[in-house]
Amino acid sequence: MIEVIAFDADDTLWHSESLYVMTQDRFKQILAPYELNGDIDEHLYETEMRNLNTFGYGAKGFTLSMIETAIELTNGRIRGKDIQEIINAVREMISRDISLLDGVAETIPLLAQERTLMMITKGDLLDQESKIARSGLDEYFRYIEIVSTKNKEIYQKLLDKNGIDVNRFLMVGNSMPSDILPVLALGAPGVHIPYRYTWSHEHVDLEEEPQGLYHLGNIGQLPRLLQELDAAT
Amino acid sequence: MIEVIAFDADDTLWHSESLYVMTQDRFKQILAPYELNGDIDEHLYETEMRNLNTFGYGAKGFTLSMIETAIELTNGRIRGKDIQEIINAVREMISRDISLLDGVAETIPLLAQERTLMMITKGDLLDQESKIARSGLDEYFRYIEIVSTKNKEIYQKLLDKNGIDVNRFLMVGNSMPSDILPVLALGAPGVHIPYRYTWSHEHVDLEEEPQGLYHLGNIGQLPRLLQELDAAT
Repeated sequence: MIEVIAFDADDTLWHSESLYVMTQDRFKQILAPYELNGDIDEHLYETEMRNLNTFGYGAKGFTLSMIETAIELTNGRIRGKDIQEIINAVREMISRDISLLDGVAETIPLLAQERTLMMITKGDLLDQESKIARSGLDEYFRYIEIVSTKNKEIYQKLLDKNGIDVNRFLMVGNSMPSDILPVLALGAPGVHIPYRYTWSHEHVDLEEEPQGLYHLGNIGQLPRLLQELDAAT
Repeated sequence: MIEVIAFDADDTLWHSESLYVMTQDRFKQILAPYELNGDIDEHLYETEMRNLNTFGYGAKGFTLSMIETAIELTNGRIRGKDIQEIINAVREMISRDISLLDGVAETIPLLAQERTLMMITKGDLLDQESKIARSGLDEYFRYIEIVSTKNKEIYQKLLDKNGIDVNRFLMVGNSMPSDILPVLALGAPGVHIPYRYTWSHEHVDLEEEPQGLYHLGNIGQLPRLLQELDAAT
């Protein structure tokens, strides 16, 4: 039986990537009056990838990558007030109300009655903590882990640290490379619930369907899947 | 007897504030050619304080605060290439080799033979993890906790989470408000080892010497203090 259910947070419990898409649109508006020497989306993505090892995931690294992109694409002609606009757009983004995904508000309290819930999220520490607090969901999660990256070793460490048996563990998330594949590699099931937007970095093409992978369209379908999994063991 | 010794990391185990001071000097050089409408240090500090609740502690928030300060003090006239210089200065700062404070390389392995060591540090998640890994000290620490802020409630949570008895706990650090006062408030001893530089935000004036506070000039003096504390109980 599955005893511990772990959830990714951004784009699994609440909307996040849509806010990044919106902020990136605002960024493009800010750059619209300039003559640019390249494509904004493409250049920003390259800059984010280059900065990932230094600045990590999250809103602050995203901001620095937008600023660098703006400087490079305008050959340094970007004006101070427009850089301030970029920072303001992010400040607005991270202070917005948390918008839970469909089914989350009903399903999480239900699951918490019978199982131990865990949240595993990556991003800026303070920003993630603030979102968890504002989500109103923190009381349902026994373990909340904010990590800088998600790979097999990190999941193993989190299981060991909290004394969780991998045979009674299941992970739910929207990102194949971050939430699902590393957990499948440990031998635990992974439930993929895709989000409306997938950041290019999180996109993956699977050659064949791995064992232990389940697909759901909505978190509301999770209790039934869990019953089926329990019945099958 | 003290069983668990917790250490702050930046400016307690390795140099950090000196790198911030150096980067801030570089920032001032970058702004030197501009006519400014205010004092750099003063304006940067105000901007950092204003941004603390949004961007938190650490190098990325520091970068965004320097950029905002540069825009404001130059009335938006700061050029793109100079903003890029500011970002580059931070990138250089966070990729520097870790420089341990005097006595750390000898004292930490010694203490780890007899006691359980814990590291409690705040800042950017990835940056702190990277520094811990590069310090070569991580093998000596059983618990490593990266937090967004340090107050009485956070310390209580860390003790509870790891099942640590407050009566057998002691904290060592360079910051009175972050490392010492919250721990004293829990009834545990705090060992203050001042660093060469104190960030204005971490400065505190004590009206009287609190109970449980010990002052050392160097971490090398810690084993002897621990022996004295053990003998006294």
